[in-house]
Amino acid sequence: MDSQILRQRRTIRKYKDKDIPQSLLNSLLQTAAQASTTGNMQLYSVIVTRDAEKKKALAPAHFNQPMVTAAPVVLTFCADFNRFVKWCELRNAKPGYDNFQSFLTATLDAVIFTQQFCTAAELEGLGICYLGTTTYNPDMIIKALSLPKLVMPVTTITAGYPDDMPQQPDRLPSCAYIHEEQYNDYDGKAIDSLYAPKEALPENRGYVEENGKETLAQVFTDIRYTKQNNEIFSVKFLETLKSQGFDF
Amino acid sequence: MDSQILRQRRTIRKYKDKDIPQSLLNSLLQTAAQASTTGNMQLYSVIVTRDAEKKKALAPAHFNQPMVTAAPVVLTFCADFNRFVKWCELRNAKPGYDNFQSFLTATLDAVIFTQQFCTAAELEGLGICYLGTTTYNPDMIIKALSLPKLVMPVTTITAGYPDDMPQQPDRLPSCAYIHEEQYNDYDGKAIDSLYAPKEALPENRGYVEENGKETLAQVFTDIRYTKQNNEIFSVKFLETLKSQGFDF
Repeated sequence: MDSQILRQRRTIRKYKDKDIPQSLLNSLLQTAAQASTTGNMQLYSVIVTRDAEKKKALAPAHFNQPMVTAAPVVLTFCADFNRFVKWCELRNAKPGYDNFQSFLTATLDAVIFTQQFCTAAELEGLGICYLGTTTYNPDMIIKALSLPKLVMPVTTITAGYPDDMPQQPDRLPSCAYIHEEQYNDYDGKAIDSLYAPKEALPENRGYVEENGKETLAQVFTDIRYTKQNNEIFSVKFLETLKSQGFDF
Repeated sequence: MDSQILRQRRTIRKYKDKDIPQSLLNSLLQTAAQASTTGNMQLYSVIVTRDAEKKKALAPAHFNQPMVTAAPVVLTFCADFNRFVKWCELRNAKPGYDNFQSFLTATLDAVIFTQQFCTAAELEGLGICYLGTTTYNPDMIIKALSLPKLVMPVTTITAGYPDDMPQQPDRLPSCAYIHEEQYNDYDGKAIDSLYAPKEALPENRGYVEENGKETLAQVFTDIRYTKQNNEIFSVKFLETLKSQGFDF
């Protein structure tokens, strides 16, 4: 067994009309729970959505991306200090986890758990897709899934049996993200050379043209991930974080 | 190939005196880069530390845990919007990524990348350990590794060939962290039953006794993860985040 199999993976957005058995799903989540976790506290929870009505309730939080209602299973992964704090309170211990650092710790735990689940699922022939919209609309997700205080949704996965085998997307050359001994900052020439292959891809040239932009970077800044949206979603996330009890 | 191999993993804190070849390390990081990333932006960087002096410079940030200087390789994984923003600026695109939401997005990207690296490394016979101290002392790490603005360290891994085969740690029963359709909050009885096996473990009973505590939960709240430290590290992290250019 070697790691080459992970090199072949791709995100799957179209799924067969076939359920993931509950026993398989639970087993994969148990496997994921063997991944690293801070101080063995397991500061995460996952909410499994299979019910069609529940998927419909979640969909608006994810801007009605069709995968949310079409996938057999939607998994919402949460940073969770609620369980641990309840344990402390029942054991005459005074918890101090209603702060930003604790949220961050639980977020790392939750993402490690999520990614290990994804890999376990892929090794069993399932396909997954991350929904980055989770951090845009945490308030809607909290409501839809009845998340109590000290529980914050951090990411969402759709999962199912693949009904599509898309091409692997391009990635930057590894010298873009690997730094030896210290951070080697990029000059203009380095940026040009790292991003040239991506900019030359026909599909990326297509996006630039379709959107009437001059450059691929403008497709990101003006359409996909705008300053205005980022700022609105920053405020909303921080407000929601505080109202969930992680204060700072 | 199935996912059972991930079930067998364990964290490794003791390493053989044997280097990880650079070609293997780079190949594993390239494999990790095939994991999901927001909008294919790859909002992460990793700094590879092999040099003994550089390890010594990092060690205090990690409270001088011996692994930092003893491991053949220390990898600091960062949320990185610097590279992407430089690209935007060179392409007549106005980036809006100096905010909290963008930091959070890059953090998720970085942790997904980290965890996929860990799994790839373990599949090749390496052992890894996460250092949660990274978010306590980001300022010291930024200085030691010359991280520019819009780059925040989020987690650190030590890696090497295992020189130890510790027991797998216990984990909570899966019903502790899996919720069907909505969050099912815990009553006292549920907490008692979920945590009883952990509390009964001889090593955990040992920790309680050694530290003169009444309960295992008190070992966490009074010694390992105290309110006072969490609050100090919250303030420090948020200040560092702002001084790195992620403002809010």
